[in-house]
Amino acid sequence: MAVKRIGQQTILLPKKPALLAGAAWAGPKEGKGPLAALFDCVTEDETYGQQSFELAERQMVLDAARAAIGRSGLREGEIQLLLGGDLLNQIISASFTARELALPFLGLYGACSTMCQGLCLAAMLLDGEHADHALCVASSHFCTAERQYRFPLEYGNQRTPTAQWTVTGAGATVLSLSPGKPPMARMTHACIGRVVDLGVTDANNMGAAMAPAAADTLLALFEDTHTTPADYDLIVTGDLGQVGHDLLLRLMDGQGMPLIGERYRDCGLMIYAPEQDTHAGGSGCGCSAVVLNACLLPMLARGELGRIIFMSTGALMSVTSSQQGESIPGIAHAAVLESPVEKRTGV
Amino acid sequence: MAVKRIGQQTILLPKKPALLAGAAWAGPKEGKGPLAALFDCVTEDETYGQQSFELAERQMVLDAARAAIGRSGLREGEIQLLLGGDLLNQIISASFTARELALPFLGLYGACSTMCQGLCLAAMLLDGEHADHALCVASSHFCTAERQYRFPLEYGNQRTPTAQWTVTGAGATVLSLSPGKPPMARMTHACIGRVVDLGVTDANNMGAAMAPAAADTLLALFEDTHTTPADYDLIVTGDLGQVGHDLLLRLMDGQGMPLIGERYRDCGLMIYAPEQDTHAGGSGCGCSAVVLNACLLPMLARGELGRIIFMSTGALMSVTSSQQGESIPGIAHAAVLESPVEKRTGV
Repeated sequence: MAVKRIGQQTILLPKKPALLAGAAWAGPKEGKGPLAALFDCVTEDETYGQQSFELAERQMVLDAARAAIGRSGLREGEIQLLLGGDLLNQIISASFTARELALPFLGLYGACSTMCQGLCLAAMLLDGEHADHALCVASSHFCTAERQYRFPLEYGNQRTPTAQWTVTGAGATVLSLSPGKPPMARMTHACIGRVVDLGVTDANNMGAAMAPAAADTLLALFEDTHTTPADYDLIVTGDLGQVGHDLLLRLMDGQGMPLIGERYRDCGLMIYAPEQDTHAGGSGCGCSAVVLNACLLPMLARGELGRIIFMSTGALMSVTSSQQGESIPGIAHAAVLESPVEKRTGV
Repeated sequence: MAVKRIGQQTILLPKKPALLAGAAWAGPKEGKGPLAALFDCVTEDETYGQQSFELAERQMVLDAARAAIGRSGLREGEIQLLLGGDLLNQIISASFTARELALPFLGLYGACSTMCQGLCLAAMLLDGEHADHALCVASSHFCTAERQYRFPLEYGNQRTPTAQWTVTGAGATVLSLSPGKPPMARMTHACIGRVVDLGVTDANNMGAAMAPAAADTLLALFEDTHTTPADYDLIVTGDLGQVGHDLLLRLMDGQGMPLIGERYRDCGLMIYAPEQDTHAGGSGCGCSAVVLNACLLPMLARGELGRIIFMSTGALMSVTSSQQGESIPGIAHAAVLESPVEKRTGV
């Protein structure tokens, strides 16, 4: 029997793999938001000095990856696995970055759940002693996503009130089984999400499509670990935005597991200020990836947070599936992260 | 230190996870090829009774998955992880299948390397005691791939001599840490590939783009495990086709590790007969997925093969990357599979 399996979806990680170092690259709009000061790099414009938006996204992934590796104290060649993905068809941002890094590569597609999917997989592979050091990356770019999923930017089409703004950004995290320096956090549990689809067909309302999946994974995690929301200092979803955030609150309340007040945050709401006119908030693989690496990991490292649930959320539709009338399946993967230091009280 | 790590890319699996059961669904053209009698189902036409080719591909994945689960002796709810992917944008074939199965889902994108990527990941997660039972799926469909990657079929465009024919098919394999019945094979090693790109830009010659990655992974596996081609009854690549097959022979010969005669086969050459006019042979995630489940696993189960390398090969370009002038990065993941029975001699 798999001794680390607790319940239907949650996996215990007895070796508590270390999240050793992270880096977050962000675009100009994100660089004007509330987290501006926390990013390692804010690009001057959406092209990042490249010939296309796709090349810009790729370069941001590569630069974030190399910064995270540098900060981890490891040499690039010591990283034994690279796990990553993005929103572009055939995940070219991750794949072409993997070409530059020349590391053993596992390509992932979890839409905006990719960062946490990567973390969960990497942590399990480290916990199983199949690797010492792994690197997870995830990215998105407003301009590459808009023209692939919606309309060419040149059309200047109007956005609906429920629409979210795809984050331009790339996050990278180095995980280690045997860290040579104090880790920023440790992962104790991974919870792998199921695909949940309640029939939302509006591709401009992905928060509503993803919220049921977020509730499903959260409830599984609480049941499997015999915990409640009160056992965590923070529960952070990836990119539900305002609509999905409010819906998740209602869904959890209805299940007798209310997420109360300041304990629940959404990366899509943390990354932009209301006056930035993003409508329902941020989205994209890069959203939770940059908030984790710029904001959450440093807070865990400093002991300002003791134990959190980090849960990236994804909407698994494609242009083809939407055009064929399909609804939008959602998924959410969760990681329980612990501070390596005694929690500082009164913070 | 990660004790199961041997060398730069290879992982030892001390628990030798079992490949418990498999199933292979194939399209009509594949059903006229040399492996016709081995498929669990040959669809009457490319629509498989569905309203679109995309729905047909999805239905084949679901039916293959359920057949493999049924054959494994497990109940659907006992499968703790579903890993899968396909060639379609946002891997909708796998994601929408995951919606039907409602199992914890890890979406993968490795292009045509997906089947082996899934097997390697699942085997590591079982070996690490993070799950008892996992299901891997991979699929492709000639009609969905052609219209996404090349031209609408209605154009009737000519194919170049180096072009390969995307296999219509879906393969599913159930892996288990604690099999309740004799397994078909056991996995002893996984070798995770690096992205290799020697600059091939012709999307109609993917065999040439993937062969260097195949050589890279094979050489790493041999070096890490201190073995040579002579230690395996069969080395099977996923879908290099005739061009890539011949190139891999030359590359390995040049590295002093010749793949001799009958010991080396390519799934893309096994699945069609020369008179079926597929030009360089078969390709697609479904290619190695159906050949593994229809042909290789049964031969291992019967002891007709003792130890093999199963290596799926992928070309990681997208329409956008090709249109922007990028070359085609290749990747190959390998699994060492052993027969559960004493090899029958003279077979």
